[in-house]
Amino acid sequence: MSDVVGIQAVRAVLRETPGRARNLYCQRGQRNARVNELIQLARDAGVRHQSVTPDFLERRAEGAAHQGVLLECHELELTAESEFMDTLGDPGQGFLALVLDGVTDPRNFGACLRTANAAGADAVLVPKRKSAPLSPVALKAAQGGAEGLAIVEVTNLARCLKNLKDRGVWVVGTAGESARTYADIEAEVPLVVVLGSEGTGLRRLTADMCDYLVGIPMAGNVDSLNVSVAAGVVLFEVQRKRGMLAAGE
Amino acid sequence: MSDVVGIQAVRAVLRETPGRARNLYCQRGQRNARVNELIQLARDAGVRHQSVTPDFLERRAEGAAHQGVLLECHELELTAESEFMDTLGDPGQGFLALVLDGVTDPRNFGACLRTANAAGADAVLVPKRKSAPLSPVALKAAQGGAEGLAIVEVTNLARCLKNLKDRGVWVVGTAGESARTYADIEAEVPLVVVLGSEGTGLRRLTADMCDYLVGIPMAGNVDSLNVSVAAGVVLFEVQRKRGMLAAGE
Repeated sequence: MSDVVGIQAVRAVLRETPGRARNLYCQRGQRNARVNELIQLARDAGVRHQSVTPDFLERRAEGAAHQGVLLECHELELTAESEFMDTLGDPGQGFLALVLDGVTDPRNFGACLRTANAAGADAVLVPKRKSAPLSPVALKAAQGGAEGLAIVEVTNLARCLKNLKDRGVWVVGTAGESARTYADIEAEVPLVVVLGSEGTGLRRLTADMCDYLVGIPMAGNVDSLNVSVAAGVVLFEVQRKRGMLAAGE
Repeated sequence: MSDVVGIQAVRAVLRETPGRARNLYCQRGQRNARVNELIQLARDAGVRHQSVTPDFLERRAEGAAHQGVLLECHELELTAESEFMDTLGDPGQGFLALVLDGVTDPRNFGACLRTANAAGADAVLVPKRKSAPLSPVALKAAQGGAEGLAIVEVTNLARCLKNLKDRGVWVVGTAGESARTYADIEAEVPLVVVLGSEGTGLRRLTADMCDYLVGIPMAGNVDSLNVSVAAGVVLFEVQRKRGMLAAGE
């Protein structure tokens, strides 16, 4: 069982994957249009709702900002690597996935899911070891993004990247010291973008598996971007090149 | 007096604005290359350092992840609006500033400072009211970005934007429902990018002062990006257009 908290995140589950929802808990005496909408969505999905004390929510939310709502859910099912590869088939030019190599902060993990979903990524791949858990804090930061894409648990990242390359997917790593920049990414191919941890970047073994590396030039005095911001800059640039913004260009 | 915590943030102050630093506190028994570098930087700047207990650091850091180091500083001086306008002169084509209209979460505020600094912005403007404080949590999230640009406190945002427009600066607001996208921004002019709050977006009065509005198209099921990610996507696109990435293009 896992809990989802916050208006946006709860709404996303009730809309996108209502089958996961079991119980909706709303803070007693705190009714407004947004909460009422959630209750209506819960009713439509045949999900029970009940009023609870702020204390109950505080305890269950484990420090995440719950905004007076908590949805008890079946675990969000991570996609097994084998299942992901089976259903991948022959990935087309529009394929886009994000790999997080060693992102251990749940809030950063959730923010990356939100960003990847917003950019239209098909999947986010995370190694089983040394990755943040899909905790309430992560799901809250994801703002519903976790429901909109495949989250694939990978046992051996280097082997997984090799398998993807064998299917015609290009693997691009981001690393600060690269001569090429993210604006040089060849976007009209199936693509995996690999981001490293906030502290130490890509692992050597991961970097070696990349077709090429790109950097995000830093103009100021900070050393790097937050990993979710880096994901946004790179993934939206890929989608811009692919014409996702074409209507406006 | 204000405190700066975390390796990166402390290093940024000792390097960029050592005059602010008063005392460096390091966790007893936790010496490593990165901490030693900070102690050397403190010595070079004539700043005292001392070993303290983890309890001391926990209490002083107010919940921010301190990584065993805390630098006691004179307040980071916010730039007064009048001083900013006085020194602005005739802003050239390269001028870029970010306005945060109602960003109240300190971690988001700090992440925006880090992002704006990385993108080479000259200044970040924040209204005096309804903005997050420049707290230890914000400074930690900024990772030194707060030291690398002017943070301007604005009393009346609409009037400030009007003054900037009178100086030839273009004011572009981001709003979800816009027909134009951020890729349509005319970048070869002095530019201010306005982002609204995470919840409610731009205030009406602020939107009315913008020369035009742009949106960031959402491809998935989430409603919006985190404000620091939105800042990264828009500011780096402006700099890409301006040729900041030209070496690689």
